[in-house]
Amino acid sequence: MTPRMLPSLATFTDLYELTMAQAYWQEGMAETATFSFFFRSLPPHRGYLVAAGIEPLLAELDGFHFTEEDIAALRQLRRFHEDFLSYLAGVRFTGSVRAVAEGTVVFANEPLLEVTAPILQAQLVETLVVNRLHVYTLLASKAARVRWAAGPQRQVVDFGARRCHGLEAADIAAYSGWLVGFEGTSNVHAGLRYGIPLYGTMAHSFVTAFPHELDAFRAYARTFPDSTTLLVDTYDTVAGIKHALRIAGELQQQGHQLRGIRLDSGDLASLSRIARQLADAAGFPHLQIFASGGIDEYTIEQLVAQRAPIDAFGVGTKYGVSQDAPYGDCAYKLVSYAGRATLKLSEHKQTLPGSKQVYRFYDPTGQMLYDQIALAEEPPPLGGQPLLHEVIHEGRRVHPPVSLDASRQYFRQQWASLPEPCKDLHNPVPYDVQLSVRLHQLTKQLSEQLRAELHPPDHMPAG
Amino acid sequence: MTPRMLPSLATFTDLYELTMAQAYWQEGMAETATFSFFFRSLPPHRGYLVAAGIEPLLAELDGFHFTEEDIAALRQLRRFHEDFLSYLAGVRFTGSVRAVAEGTVVFANEPLLEVTAPILQAQLVETLVVNRLHVYTLLASKAARVRWAAGPQRQVVDFGARRCHGLEAADIAAYSGWLVGFEGTSNVHAGLRYGIPLYGTMAHSFVTAFPHELDAFRAYARTFPDSTTLLVDTYDTVAGIKHALRIAGELQQQGHQLRGIRLDSGDLASLSRIARQLADAAGFPHLQIFASGGIDEYTIEQLVAQRAPIDAFGVGTKYGVSQDAPYGDCAYKLVSYAGRATLKLSEHKQTLPGSKQVYRFYDPTGQMLYDQIALAEEPPPLGGQPLLHEVIHEGRRVHPPVSLDASRQYFRQQWASLPEPCKDLHNPVPYDVQLSVRLHQLTKQLSEQLRAELHPPDHMPAG
Repeated sequence: MTPRMLPSLATFTDLYELTMAQAYWQEGMAETATFSFFFRSLPPHRGYLVAAGIEPLLAELDGFHFTEEDIAALRQLRRFHEDFLSYLAGVRFTGSVRAVAEGTVVFANEPLLEVTAPILQAQLVETLVVNRLHVYTLLASKAARVRWAAGPQRQVVDFGARRCHGLEAADIAAYSGWLVGFEGTSNVHAGLRYGIPLYGTMAHSFVTAFPHELDAFRAYARTFPDSTTLLVDTYDTVAGIKHALRIAGELQQQGHQLRGIRLDSGDLASLSRIARQLADAAGFPHLQIFASGGIDEYTIEQLVAQRAPIDAFGVGTKYGVSQDAPYGDCAYKLVSYAGRATLKLSEHKQTLPGSKQVYRFYDPTGQMLYDQIALAEEPPPLGGQPLLHEVIHEGRRVHPPVSLDASRQYFRQQWASLPEPCKDLHNPVPYDVQLSVRLHQLTKQLSEQLRAELHPPDHMPAG
Repeated sequence: MTPRMLPSLATFTDLYELTMAQAYWQEGMAETATFSFFFRSLPPHRGYLVAAGIEPLLAELDGFHFTEEDIAALRQLRRFHEDFLSYLAGVRFTGSVRAVAEGTVVFANEPLLEVTAPILQAQLVETLVVNRLHVYTLLASKAARVRWAAGPQRQVVDFGARRCHGLEAADIAAYSGWLVGFEGTSNVHAGLRYGIPLYGTMAHSFVTAFPHELDAFRAYARTFPDSTTLLVDTYDTVAGIKHALRIAGELQQQGHQLRGIRLDSGDLASLSRIARQLADAAGFPHLQIFASGGIDEYTIEQLVAQRAPIDAFGVGTKYGVSQDAPYGDCAYKLVSYAGRATLKLSEHKQTLPGSKQVYRFYDPTGQMLYDQIALAEEPPPLGGQPLLHEVIHEGRRVHPPVSLDASRQYFRQQWASLPEPCKDLHNPVPYDVQLSVRLHQLTKQLSEQLRAELHPPDHMPAG
C-alpha cells in the first residue's frame, strides 16, 4: 500500500491516440470533430442496455491534462517531437459533450454520448470514454436483468468484489447494481465511496475457526444480536439450519431476533423449502432466507419459477464479470470532421455518419413505443423526446454532477416505461429503433460516393 | 480528474470480514490462522494456470492499515463497537505469507499463496487477496494460451485497454501479457508504469478525418516516416493495401521504410495472403502484416493452421476480458486455526485441511513429471522441488520485490518445462497432481470425524 507515483489518468490512452495526435498537430488539423459512442449490437439475450458510466466519465474529463511527469515519461519513449510534447502539456479538454442521462435505457446504434472538440482532443480521450461507458453499461445492463428476475418482493445484493476484474471493477459493479435498484453491496470501499447500503453475513472460515458450528453461530450472535445472518452450509446444510434455529431460540429468550440464514451451495430450491418449513414450525416466520453461490439472472428466474421461498439473493461472480456477456460490441467513431459527415465501410462494421439525436416516442400510458435516430441538425419530430443533452459546453460542465441516487430514481422511471416483452431474459422482443429519412439518405449517399471513389466505373471489372 | 478523497485500500473488503473481525475481537480469538488460496478447478479448456498477482499483492499488503478517515467512515455505519474501531485503527499486517513465484505454472487445488497470521488479520485481507490473485492469474493464463498459439515467429501485442473492466483491469491485462511473453501493449499508462514496450498503429477515425484514404496515409507517414503501420480496412481492404503500397514506394524514394499494414476486419487469412502477395510483388518483402479485430487464441490457432502470412497479432477484447472464461473458481480457505487443521464439507466444495507445500518433480530432461500436494509440516519428498516460499515474515518482506522483467524470465523457464500436451487449447492432457499420503489421510479422518459429529450413530435413521 505504499503510494507510488503513477502516470496520470490522461495517459490512460492507446499509443495510437498520441501518435495520431502528433500527426494532426504536425498537419495543422485543428478543425472540430464529432465522435459518437454507441453499441453496434446488443449482447446475446439482451433486449436493451442501461447506459451508465457517463457521470463518472464527466468527472474524469473535468480537468483532463498531462502532468509534467507524464510529459517527461513520454519524452523517454523517443517517439514524439519536443514541440509536440510542449503543445501536449498545454492541452485541456475544451470541447462539448452531449449525452443521455445516467441510467437511460438504450438500444443498438443509439449514441450514448457524443464528443465535439478539436480533433486532437476528441481523439485523445477515446480510450477513456470507451473503457468507462463500456464496463459501466455492461454491468448496469446485467444488473437490470438480475434485478428484474428477482422481482419486487426479493432483495438483491452485490457480492462481486472478490471476482470482479480488479478493485475498480468491483466498485463499478456495486455502483451499477445500486443504479438499477439492488438493495446494496458487500463491498465496503464502494459503500463508503458511494453511500450504498452495506450487507454481509459470515464466511465458512468463521464457522471452521470454531470446534463446532454451534459455537461459531453463538459467538457471532453474541456480537451482533440483532443483525445476524448465519451461514448454514459449512458441513451439512440441514444440520446447519437446525443449529441456526437453536440460536434463534436463544436470541429470542434474550429479547433479540435472528435476522436470517444463508444458503451458499446445494439445491437452493429444496434447501430453502426445508429451511422455511423448519423455521416456520419453530415459530420464526420472519427469519429471512438468503441465497448465494453461483447465482445470476438465469438461476434466479428458475428459483422464482419453482417458488423457492428465498427472500434475498447475493449475486457475486457471474454478475460481477457479466459472465454470459463479458463484453459488448461498442465503438467511438468519427462521424464528422470540419463540417463534413464521415463514415467507415469496414465489413460488418459500417457506421452511421453525422452528429445525431435520439428521439423517443411514448404511447398515451407512458410506455415506450419506438425510438428514432436522426441527425442532430434535423428539426425534432413531433412528439419525440430527445435523449441526448449537452452536459459539457466548451470544457465546462453545464449542470452540477447528478448524484447516483438521483440516477437511481431516473432509472426507475425509465424501467417502468420499457415494455415488458423487451425485458425477457432469453428471447426479448426487439424494440423498434428507426432511422430518420435524412439519416438514412445521408448514409446511403456517402457510402455510394465512397464506393464510387474506390472503384471508379472505368476500373470496374467487365460485366 | 479532480482528485477525490477515496477510502483507503484497507476498506476494499467485504463487510463480513469486518463484522467477523469484531466477533473474533469480542470473543478474544487471537490465535494464529492459516488461509490457503487455490483454484478448485481449472477453467474450461485450460490445462494449467499461470499464477500471477502475487508481487502486486505483496506490495499492497506492505503497509496495510485503516486510515483515520476510514475509521471515521466506518463509525458512521453504526455497526461497530467504538472499542473495536480503536483496535482496528491500530491493526497492521504482522503475519507471514508463503507463495509460489510470480509466473509459476500451477494446477487445481495447489495453493498459490498461504497467509499465516492472527485470524483477524488473515480474515481482513481475504477480499484483497482473492481479487488480486484471481484476475491476474486469469489474465496471465489466457495470455499464455494466446502467446503459445501465435508461436515463436509471430508477435503478440495487448490491445485490451478499452474493453477491459476498468482502467485498473487494463493495466493488469498489459502486465499479464508482458509476464508471459507478449511483445508489448497499446496502453500508455501501463507502458509507462511497468516499462512495457508500447505499440500502436492508427484508428479508422484518422483515415475518415481526411477526404481520401491516401491523404490520411501520407500525412501519417510524413509524421512517422520510419515507424508507420497503415490501417487498410476503413473502406475497402484491397484498395487500402494498394494505397499503402503506394505510400511504401513514396517513403522508399525518400530513404524511409513503411513498417507495415494492419488488417482489422474481414477474412484475415485470405486478406493477409493478398496483402503478402501484393507487397512482395511491389518489392516490399519486409512489410509487416499486423492483424487485429476479435482475435483470441482460437482465431490465432486457425490462422496459423491456414498458414496466413501474419507477422503480428493485436489481441484486444477477447483477451482483455478472458472471454471464454471470464472467471475462475478460486477460494481463500481457512486450513488451520490454533494448531487445529480445518476444512469445510459443503457440497462440491470440500477443501483440503492444513497448511501445505507443493512439490514438483521433473524428468532428467527438465520436463515436469508430476506435482505432489503435501502438508507443509511433512518432510520434503526426495527429488521434489518446493514451490511455496516465505515472502513475508512477521509483516516484513523477506526479499526485495521481484521485478516484472525477472518474473517474465522465470515464466519462460516454467513454460519450457511444461509438457506440450498440457498446453493444448481444447483438450489438454491433465497434468498429474497427487496428494501426499498424510494429506489424504488427514482429509479423510477430519471429514469422517465431522460427519460423525453431525450425525451421531444413535441418531442415524434405521437401516
